[in-house]
Amino acid sequence: MLKQRIAGLLNERRSGFSMPQAFYVDEEIFQADLEAVFASDWLFACSVAEIKRPGDYVTMEIGRDSVVILRDRDGEVKAYFNTCRHRGSRICLHESGRANRLVCPYHQWVYELDGRLINARQMPADFDKSGYSLVPVHVEVICGMVYVSVAENPPSFARFRDTVTPYIAPHQPDRTKVAFSSTIIEEANWKLVIENNRECYHCAGNHPALLVTLVEFALPDHPAANATFKNLMDTSTARWDRLGLPHKPADGGIEFRCIRLPFNEDCVSFTRDGAPACNKLLADFTEPDLGSVRMFRVPNNWNHFLADHIIHFRVLPLGPNRTAVKTTWLVHEDAVEGVDYDIKRLTEVWTETNDEDRILAEHNHQGIQSRAYRPGPFAPSEFMLKNFAEWYYGKMSDYVHGPAHRIAAE
Amino acid sequence: MLKQRIAGLLNERRSGFSMPQAFYVDEEIFQADLEAVFASDWLFACSVAEIKRPGDYVTMEIGRDSVVILRDRDGEVKAYFNTCRHRGSRICLHESGRANRLVCPYHQWVYELDGRLINARQMPADFDKSGYSLVPVHVEVICGMVYVSVAENPPSFARFRDTVTPYIAPHQPDRTKVAFSSTIIEEANWKLVIENNRECYHCAGNHPALLVTLVEFALPDHPAANATFKNLMDTSTARWDRLGLPHKPADGGIEFRCIRLPFNEDCVSFTRDGAPACNKLLADFTEPDLGSVRMFRVPNNWNHFLADHIIHFRVLPLGPNRTAVKTTWLVHEDAVEGVDYDIKRLTEVWTETNDEDRILAEHNHQGIQSRAYRPGPFAPSEFMLKNFAEWYYGKMSDYVHGPAHRIAAE
Amino acid sequence: MLKQRIAGLLNERRSGFSMPQAFYVDEEIFQADLEAVFASDWLFACSVAEIKRPGDYVTMEIGRDSVVILRDRDGEVKAYFNTCRHRGSRICLHESGRANRLVCPYHQWVYELDGRLINARQMPADFDKSGYSLVPVHVEVICGMVYVSVAENPPSFARFRDTVTPYIAPHQPDRTKVAFSSTIIEEANWKLVIENNRECYHCAGNHPALLVTLVEFALPDHPAANATFKNLMDTSTARWDRLGLPHKPADGGIEFRCIRLPFNEDCVSFTRDGAPACNKLLADFTEPDLGSVRMFRVPNNWNHFLADHIIHFRVLPLGPNRTAVKTTWLVHEDAVEGVDYDIKRLTEVWTETNDEDRILAEHNHQGIQSRAYRPGPFAPSEFMLKNFAEWYYGKMSDYVHGPAHRIAAE
Repeated sequence: MLKQRIAGLLNERRSGFSMPQAFYVDEEIFQADLEAVFASDWLFACSVAEIKRPGDYVTMEIGRDSVVILRDRDGEVKAYFNTCRHRGSRICLHESGRANRLVCPYHQWVYELDGRLINARQMPADFDKSGYSLVPVHVEVICGMVYVSVAENPPSFARFRDTVTPYIAPHQPDRTKVAFSSTIIEEANWKLVIENNRECYHCAGNHPALLVTLVEFALPDHPAANATFKNLMDTSTARWDRLGLPHKPADGGIEFRCIRLPFNEDCVSFTRDGAPACNKLLADFTEPDLGSVRMFRVPNNWNHFLADHIIHFRVLPLGPNRTAVKTTWLVHEDAVEGVDYDIKRLTEVWTETNDEDRILAEHNHQGIQSRAYRPGPFAPSEFMLKNFAEWYYGKMSDYVHGPAHRIAAE
Repeated sequence: MLKQRIAGLLNERRSGFSMPQAFYVDEEIFQADLEAVFASDWLFACSVAEIKRPGDYVTMEIGRDSVVILRDRDGEVKAYFNTCRHRGSRICLHESGRANRLVCPYHQWVYELDGRLINARQMPADFDKSGYSLVPVHVEVICGMVYVSVAENPPSFARFRDTVTPYIAPHQPDRTKVAFSSTIIEEANWKLVIENNRECYHCAGNHPALLVTLVEFALPDHPAANATFKNLMDTSTARWDRLGLPHKPADGGIEFRCIRLPFNEDCVSFTRDGAPACNKLLADFTEPDLGSVRMFRVPNNWNHFLADHIIHFRVLPLGPNRTAVKTTWLVHEDAVEGVDYDIKRLTEVWTETNDEDRILAEHNHQGIQSRAYRPGPFAPSEFMLKNFAEWYYGKMSDYVHGPAHRIAAE
Repeated sequence: MLKQRIAGLLNERRSGFSMPQAFYVDEEIFQADLEAVFASDWLFACSVAEIKRPGDYVTMEIGRDSVVILRDRDGEVKAYFNTCRHRGSRICLHESGRANRLVCPYHQWVYELDGRLINARQMPADFDKSGYSLVPVHVEVICGMVYVSVAENPPSFARFRDTVTPYIAPHQPDRTKVAFSSTIIEEANWKLVIENNRECYHCAGNHPALLVTLVEFALPDHPAANATFKNLMDTSTARWDRLGLPHKPADGGIEFRCIRLPFNEDCVSFTRDGAPACNKLLADFTEPDLGSVRMFRVPNNWNHFLADHIIHFRVLPLGPNRTAVKTTWLVHEDAVEGVDYDIKRLTEVWTETNDEDRILAEHNHQGIQSRAYRPGPFAPSEFMLKNFAEWYYGKMSDYVHGPAHRIAAE
């Protein structure tokens, strides 16, 4: 019945317009999103910088599932559902920590870092522990970025990996440390959080601090771009070509996006004044102005890779009108706080921007609830919202009809 | 299925008794109320005193809809759904304010005060703005009281207007200013808030401050009235007749009620001691004892019009067990705070009374949830609850069967 | 449809394993629990020590029902739904109090302590009050413990009463007073709260203060018991036999349990050091070491009866993931605070233990929500969870199929 309802809503969709109301506000459809999107695809989880040593772990909530991501004794990144096989208690209780083995706090069942149950006190002698390993979660690591999938058979990760690695690898994210992270809660549907991120049409009216440094245009031939921007692009791309750094828009279809774009004239980083936020540059960079590799992947991740720092954004749905956005700032692993960088200076522009975006998404959510809402037309500079809608409709169509019967978008 | 359920409940109703349980506590029926009552009828919104100048606006939440009510450049009162036609953001973010034009905070689409979209930056040259005006909401103004309806075809307002105008107009509500307003949240169904207001059977045990001045009897021939009251009526009506002020019970059927009633002997206003709350009387009154025009209209409004001030009450549903009650005190537009009136003195009796009523409604809601609840018999002095129930059943019957097939009440 | 769903879940159950997920986390099944369990069986309510004099009352929330339990003029314990027969208001607004008669705060309808409506002011002369008594709730009192049932036809109480009275009566609970009580809220399903209480497999890892005195083993032939325990049992039971105090495991089937068990060597009470908490012993005891009568009854009650004090635990469901646990400490009615006992010393061990259990139950609830949860195997020392599951499945089977068609457990 829910599937019929979703099929009906898919029939109402109109290319180039915002989505039918129910996709943004409905509780049942939110539950479907959790299955059709968040339990079926890859999600950005964390940076390897958060789990450097064997036994380091982080936990992450994906809908009703808690997942623990850790580094095992072989240095590999592994992930498991954070649910004991005895009576279902959570095992790791903190957002991050370190454990030699995973011990359930309830009855002290003990799991190895590879997921095997190795001790279950008081169980009978004939109890077969081999049937009670932790349930594994799929993991992929790409240049230090950890993605997980709770799907039984996640989609292929190869094209994404192959395409974005050349852009990201030069920044050496695996040689970083976490300078700061923050999580904010937005009282808005996760799709509105993503849509908000996918266009800078709203920037001029809302992001004064960000626009000191960020160019509003997301493509070399952006519909709204001006001559100043085109000149800036020409100068920048020539420099990057000399340095051997890829910059052209990658072909990610509707699933991901990767491009290197310049900052405004005389700006090299997301700071109040555009000067670097960290004096110790990433990798072995000597040139502080590398623009920013902007990499986005549906459904929950966007990033900026600069010469001096990296920012990961992670979106997780908490309810039809509630979304968590975690921002993580990474600097060179040898950078010293107070010497090479100052946390306030490093984080203040995006902290403000995140809060401005939160307010926009919340008002958007509130307004969409109305019986007066009708899907409205995207501006040309909102082309990425069209892609996102198309991708989302595809996931919902797969959910309703199965992948083999995907309905063609108009 | 919900409609079948409601039809079943309507069959259980018993004239002269409180309603079947589900009408008071059920989530689904609350959703039906929002459609059958709040989205189909007229709702009291505000006083024109709140929007005196062109561009002054107030917003109001009706279920999931936000509505903006404003005065346009021609001095007319207009109302629109507060939802941008681009991607649905709320436009006016505050409870009240002033705007030369309505500018959406998200992407700065600009609407004239008449609702027309007049600017949408970055949209293509061929974008037809005429198709993207704000969605209008119906408005009626009666002696300075603004009513709105989000229905497509609201019911006629004429009989109400024609009937109550002679009672209200002499108090000149359009020559007032807001002295104070407050909103309280009651953890009770909106119907219990209305029922509580529709009888004074509970007054003796609960409203000590109010009963200093208010007579408990709502009709000249009130079932519980005594000889003192009848004498008071005779004296008062003779005086009002001399002043040409209507006072007899208006015939509002089950939809509205209008009557002028006296205060207790030696009292003229809702104050601790019964003396006037504002020395500057309304209109050009010289006589401070005009009793009070009590005017009620389903589903969300009751009022008192005195010689020295006016009080509007506005009820808005927030959930099956959550209701907002806004109280607005108006005085003559030339009255001076601190000179002609004192806010505490003006407001304290009804502030206390509102809070006493909140507690009663909340305990009523809690008790009704029980499996032991059975609809109970109204006392004769609760005759207005019978009217209210009959009106509500009619609205629900229309919702279930359509207006043409309304089931006769027993 | 819900019943079909529950029937399907019952078919999935596996003896000796924790329950299928939905029984712990589902909103609809929680609603079914309220009917199938809490509205169909006996629930522990309070001690008679809380309502010593005629007119003393306590109130208690059972799902959406408020129940008032009082002592009437004849000294009998009575219970009624706390809902006025007029328009359904709650009548008794406090957790406990005293009332000569029950007067509804809304319109002052007056009920005698036997439930009869004796005054309804302003009602017509021909109003028949005899049809508007308070709706009664079934009550049973067993050695000062009050149980209530909101069922129309509650199950028989006789076997429980007959079986446990010999264990409890010597402690004379009806000659006690309340020294202290506390209510905590656990963000966990009520079944997890009960399961947590039904095993001490988790004690070693979680209850340091409790294990100073409590033996972990719940049966003379407990699966994990050691020689020390067996010796302790032998010594203790010999002493109790001399005193004529019953101690052997009572046959309560899967519905209740009653047994006397010793404390650890040199310990006689639930205190930090094992010394008595109250110098004035219960009844006319002179021997401070009587171990503890542990009495449990599904679905909401466990107790400890010691030589010096009694502890009642009462569990009430607030939501699928929310449960109230009330703990009441009773001492001899002539014991004097500050002289015979100190409240902190009396209550601190179980206050800590309750909080430790709360955290365990909450993490258990969170972990069970996951798609990775699968019912897990009970350890031998969790045999009482198997009983509880069997009892619960029986109640749900009755609910789905009717008592005559109970499906045999595997």
